[in-house]
Amino acid sequence: MDYSPINFRDKLANVQEQWSPRVIAKLNDYQFKVVKLEGDSIWHTHLETDEAFIILSGELDNEFRNGNVHVREGELFVVPKGGEHKPFASTECAVLLIEPRGTRNTGDAAGERTAELDVCVQLK
Amino acid sequence: MDYSPINFRDKLANVQEQWSPRVIAKLNDYQFKVVKLEGDSIWHTHLETDEAFIILSGELDNEFRNGNVHVREGELFVVPKGGEHKPFASTECAVLLIEPRGTRNTGDAAGERTAELDVCVQLK
Repeated sequence: MDYSPINFRDKLANVQEQWSPRVIAKLNDYQFKVVKLEGDSIWHTHLETDEAFIILSGELDNEFRNGNVHVREGELFVVPKGGEHKPFASTECAVLLIEPRGTRNTGDAAGERTAELDVCVQLK
Repeated sequence: MDYSPINFRDKLANVQEQWSPRVIAKLNDYQFKVVKLEGDSIWHTHLETDEAFIILSGELDNEFRNGNVHVREGELFVVPKGGEHKPFASTECAVLLIEPRGTRNTGDAAGERTAELDVCVQLK
């Protein structure tokens, strides 16, 4: 087995592109992904699963139809299954996502923000 | 729905007891738990699940029969299912655990380190 811990800062240093989640670890059939976000995502819903956001740096808003959640570094927010939401970051933030393998970043919606699944961080 | 993010530092401020995981959020049938650790746990194995540790402050060792993993603040380590391990912290560290609901902190072993399941943080 691999006895190396996974350092979030090291992984993020190898992520250049925004809005492109990179798989860094797995937990049973769940995946940990790091992603850099800036600007607006699109309104979307995950019909089959909750989705966890942990903010590693910066700040992220998750807009819902009836409210807004402002999440800062050192905070966790779980978007409940079926909750239509739109992530937004006024300046670049880094996020750890935890969700089942196969969860698409834009859920039931599709557009230029829709990223490829199962892409791992390329380490230099 | 509750639009409040979960702040790890605030939750930890309400955890007095070491070795007592406190549930702070759920993700489908998984739970996020914060725990303060200092000293030795006992050798144990989770036969049914992987177990994720994210270090929120301090440093944690996870000893395995064939190696040791030293995990620092800002790092993640996933103990693979069936991997016999013993957590150890020379000074107090704070950890975020992510694992399926019903996962006992000492796995297949039992002892004074075995904690009650499904205890939530009591907020003042």
